[in-house]
Amino acid sequence: MNNFKNIHVLGLGLIGGSLSRDLKRILPEAVIYGVDNNEDHLDEAVGLGVVDHSSRFEAINQADLVILAIPVDQANLFLPPILDALKEDALVIDVGSTKGSVCDAVKEHPRREQFLAAHPIAGTEFSGPSAAIENLFKNKTMILCEVEKTRQDLLEQAMQIFEALEMNIRYMNPHSHDKHIAYVSHLSHISSFMLGKTVIEKEKNEKDIFDMAGSGFASTVRLAKSNPATWTPIFKENKANVLESLTEYITNLTHFKNVLEADDYEEVFNEMHNTNHIKSILKGLS
Amino acid sequence: MNNFKNIHVLGLGLIGGSLSRDLKRILPEAVIYGVDNNEDHLDEAVGLGVVDHSSRFEAINQADLVILAIPVDQANLFLPPILDALKEDALVIDVGSTKGSVCDAVKEHPRREQFLAAHPIAGTEFSGPSAAIENLFKNKTMILCEVEKTRQDLLEQAMQIFEALEMNIRYMNPHSHDKHIAYVSHLSHISSFMLGKTVIEKEKNEKDIFDMAGSGFASTVRLAKSNPATWTPIFKENKANVLESLTEYITNLTHFKNVLEADDYEEVFNEMHNTNHIKSILKGLS
Repeated sequence: MNNFKNIHVLGLGLIGGSLSRDLKRILPEAVIYGVDNNEDHLDEAVGLGVVDHSSRFEAINQADLVILAIPVDQANLFLPPILDALKEDALVIDVGSTKGSVCDAVKEHPRREQFLAAHPIAGTEFSGPSAAIENLFKNKTMILCEVEKTRQDLLEQAMQIFEALEMNIRYMNPHSHDKHIAYVSHLSHISSFMLGKTVIEKEKNEKDIFDMAGSGFASTVRLAKSNPATWTPIFKENKANVLESLTEYITNLTHFKNVLEADDYEEVFNEMHNTNHIKSILKGLS
Repeated sequence: MNNFKNIHVLGLGLIGGSLSRDLKRILPEAVIYGVDNNEDHLDEAVGLGVVDHSSRFEAINQADLVILAIPVDQANLFLPPILDALKEDALVIDVGSTKGSVCDAVKEHPRREQFLAAHPIAGTEFSGPSAAIENLFKNKTMILCEVEKTRQDLLEQAMQIFEALEMNIRYMNPHSHDKHIAYVSHLSHISSFMLGKTVIEKEKNEKDIFDMAGSGFASTVRLAKSNPATWTPIFKENKANVLESLTEYITNLTHFKNVLEADDYEEVFNEMHNTNHIKSILKGLS
């Protein structure tokens, strides 16, 4: 049986809101309270039924489970006082997209064992409580960091939830997580935002350019719809890894530009051909 | 009534094959012949029912309509001899992704009026006869270049086909087409290929990185599955415009890298925020 009866979700955006909706379904006896420093979001979340009631940060000492789904730089700041306030058998799970700095922030905290660092690899390009949808996490990967530092009974209850969400669990060192995720997630966002910027700048002078855009452009630029308030802190917290991946990306683009400039079409072909096996790598992802 | 009874489709890949499938449906009285210098593709296309019969380049003098759906550098070479061989009331439509060089190749041809330069903005990341699907062109944009140079009665019959395909027609100068399409299509492919390359290179040393990839990565990297044999000639024929767009893209990425390096998070935020209105621009594209 799951002991999480009073659940506080901090941050009612895409991830926090979607998780709230699922928790209502899989833990029908629990009451889900929403906390958000944006009053409009809080009202909207209650209105949409994303959470059962609105609550305040000060009420966190009542919670059995706290979900921390706020921008990653804020999570680093709020996690220590949350642990300070937590009941003895309560757990806080952080679900942000970077894991190194948040784990470091509570490394020496006396209640470190009441914390679980998690990253559900799930999302859409939309944001806010209205973007919250059921089953966002189904069949997606959940990365857990430093599980050995979380109290066993609390970890087990969290695992029950992730199993009910039908997630695939992976275990990882938080700094390895941040290095890898820079490549497969954070870089994609920069690539997409800057592609959108390049085309929008061109369009200022050349009208109707978007009439020519097809589904290929829509696909590569989709992530440029993402929320800057979410992504600025992610790039800040994962700066070194993001810069490394971005530097390699620019180097590869510059090489492609150079071989095209030199009319070296054999190399232009090879550059693409050697990347084609991404087909098999991505099998199953959509 | 449409006079196109004998239709020869040159090139039975994604575009030529998909168009063949639709032509069989919308012109049931026509016979569709396939021509491809890849014998396996030719047999496959007949076997799959993509075309009615296989044929040879030499039989093009029998055709009422020729669809030229081969790599764009080949189209420039084959178009003049096709026009030389064509019957008096026959039309050849080129459906390649660049339009400047193919229009230039027949600018002075005595049978220029029997040619129509077209670019259907439609596709998938797959290739070959097995990638050919019905209704690929439905509700998509068809760009026509220099229609004033095509004989009116032939143009009208072509327009009947595009209407039956339920395409949205746009008219454009071929060199403007190539400039714009470099931004909204060709650049997306390079962006995607080099993103794939960057992550694959990283993965050589860091196993299991793709377990962490989500739908966002899959979306941005989707075009890296595209056929290098199609895309190398496109980049070659549209080299100047592609280089211009790629240079601007690299400049924008480098600026983003510099502001992140300098911890200028206000500017990092603005870079993304200013691109967010791509949402409204892309409305309706998927």
